[in-house]
Amino acid sequence: MHSSEALQQRVKQAFNSIALPDAPSNLYDPVAYTLSQGGKRLRPLLVIAACDMLNGDIEEAIHPAVGIEIFHNFTLLHDDIMDQAPLRRGKETVYKKWNSNIAILSGDTMFALANREIVKTRPDVIPELVELFNTTAIQVCEGQQYDMDFETQIEVTISEYLEMIRLKTAVLLACSLKTGAIIAGVSPVEQSLVYDAGISLGMAFQLKDDYLDTFGDEKVFGKTPGGDILAGKKTWLFLRLLEKGGDNRKKLLELYDQHSEMFPADKLGFFKAEFIAKGIPGEINDLIDTYYSAANESLEKLAVPAERKAVLLAIIESLMSREK
Amino acid sequence: MHSSEALQQRVKQAFNSIALPDAPSNLYDPVAYTLSQGGKRLRPLLVIAACDMLNGDIEEAIHPAVGIEIFHNFTLLHDDIMDQAPLRRGKETVYKKWNSNIAILSGDTMFALANREIVKTRPDVIPELVELFNTTAIQVCEGQQYDMDFETQIEVTISEYLEMIRLKTAVLLACSLKTGAIIAGVSPVEQSLVYDAGISLGMAFQLKDDYLDTFGDEKVFGKTPGGDILAGKKTWLFLRLLEKGGDNRKKLLELYDQHSEMFPADKLGFFKAEFIAKGIPGEINDLIDTYYSAANESLEKLAVPAERKAVLLAIIESLMSREK
Repeated sequence: MHSSEALQQRVKQAFNSIALPDAPSNLYDPVAYTLSQGGKRLRPLLVIAACDMLNGDIEEAIHPAVGIEIFHNFTLLHDDIMDQAPLRRGKETVYKKWNSNIAILSGDTMFALANREIVKTRPDVIPELVELFNTTAIQVCEGQQYDMDFETQIEVTISEYLEMIRLKTAVLLACSLKTGAIIAGVSPVEQSLVYDAGISLGMAFQLKDDYLDTFGDEKVFGKTPGGDILAGKKTWLFLRLLEKGGDNRKKLLELYDQHSEMFPADKLGFFKAEFIAKGIPGEINDLIDTYYSAANESLEKLAVPAERKAVLLAIIESLMSREK
Repeated sequence: MHSSEALQQRVKQAFNSIALPDAPSNLYDPVAYTLSQGGKRLRPLLVIAACDMLNGDIEEAIHPAVGIEIFHNFTLLHDDIMDQAPLRRGKETVYKKWNSNIAILSGDTMFALANREIVKTRPDVIPELVELFNTTAIQVCEGQQYDMDFETQIEVTISEYLEMIRLKTAVLLACSLKTGAIIAGVSPVEQSLVYDAGISLGMAFQLKDDYLDTFGDEKVFGKTPGGDILAGKKTWLFLRLLEKGGDNRKKLLELYDQHSEMFPADKLGFFKAEFIAKGIPGEINDLIDTYYSAANESLEKLAVPAERKAVLLAIIESLMSREK
């Protein structure tokens, strides 16, 4: 049984020991650049934490864990091309620093590298892991497509939005936990419990992101809040406001649009005030708590002594109490 | 033991029975469109022909065969974005028909679908197949990167060019044959022989493409020859001309450049005449024959009765005598 710090250290060490070829440099420099950006490394931590909790050997899980994180970074790289995002974690995106062709191709390479990491484990679990991983990858692509579709789709329901974030975000957290469980060799029922916990955690995680993007404390959050509002992104907050908007729906849609005629500061102030007036921050926090509790309940059902669950529960707790 | 026609029929049937989800349609319509374009289906044919030759069960190889072809189509889809190519096999490319974001994401989805097909076979061979497939995928990306690098790199040697086409084209044919061999359960030595045959075949195949692009018969070739010359693409023909150009190198580079000041018809006529005057068509055909013979020699060394090799040898022969 490992501490949370020991698990984080193991993930860090695994990333430090990734060796990439030197040539062609236009292919591998962007891959190395992307992998060196760091980030929370949440997904690989979930893989080995789940494996450890279920009495598995984390050394059998570390490569698949790295594979899932490489995949996650690949999706961000390609998303940045699609969104024409100039910055990621405060640094120039690959698409901006090099160009979009190089970003496409180095991303493709990362996806192949990810699959190669997935199979560096016990042979008997490989078929199941590869199937789970690539099915999840397809779902993530579906989620990204819905997200892009929603930009031009006027009527987006809250249930469509929740399905989109389930695909775009939650399934990969669920896949991470289930990968650890498969390697630990637990029963399909227990695999499903950790998968379900991952879905609930992912939903809570993304809704928390939505909340922080508008209501985060700038000093702690690390970037100016309000990006979603200024971009006219149809988040849960906005869709809920629309639901409550009654006859104002059309006006709200016009004002919220990315080509809105409002000045940025006015737009930000107006929508924050609207959200607060309609009690939406409280509602989203209730929803986050509901998902958070569901994640805990799934884990509680696992036939594992409570002390073994402590590390994973603490990781989840820290995600929920985060301010950035 | 199956006939060539039976194997082709099996590949065709496998592609006809691929079932894709309906939604999101902006993701799956481009995938279905791409897979419906057909093409030679050479790679899946090589997978099951190799498996059949080596006494394997082609039903165990058909899904991995489909996976390799889906991957190949994915690379074409992403290449078309990078090359900004409006047409592929006489039809609009995905990038042109939809847009580049949709082309990026549906391509990513195809890569995941491909990996999922690879693991639909006997569990004991899956680890080796996934490793081979993704290592090959990385090499194909490296080849594409070198190809893009060569556009702006003034000095490209023939050996650099041959290494580029080995990566971009040959390794996937080699991977196809080896995949069939692994599923047939033959020894590593025999796997290497078919892999080597695939490399030689791939080199011959790509050089034949280079030759036909300039010297193909328009009526048979199906498109106007000369595309490489007009685009200023550094093919074997041009690099060999440069080698033989002596003091004219600089002038030849200027005239051949994609921003050359020559009229298209003049440029085409000039370079065809230069190639012929320097005996280059004969040289490339000799080189193609050398690779073709090497492919045959690798297959001759296999400890399999000659009659079992007949189908694969006939497929290779038909590729070599093709006029399009």
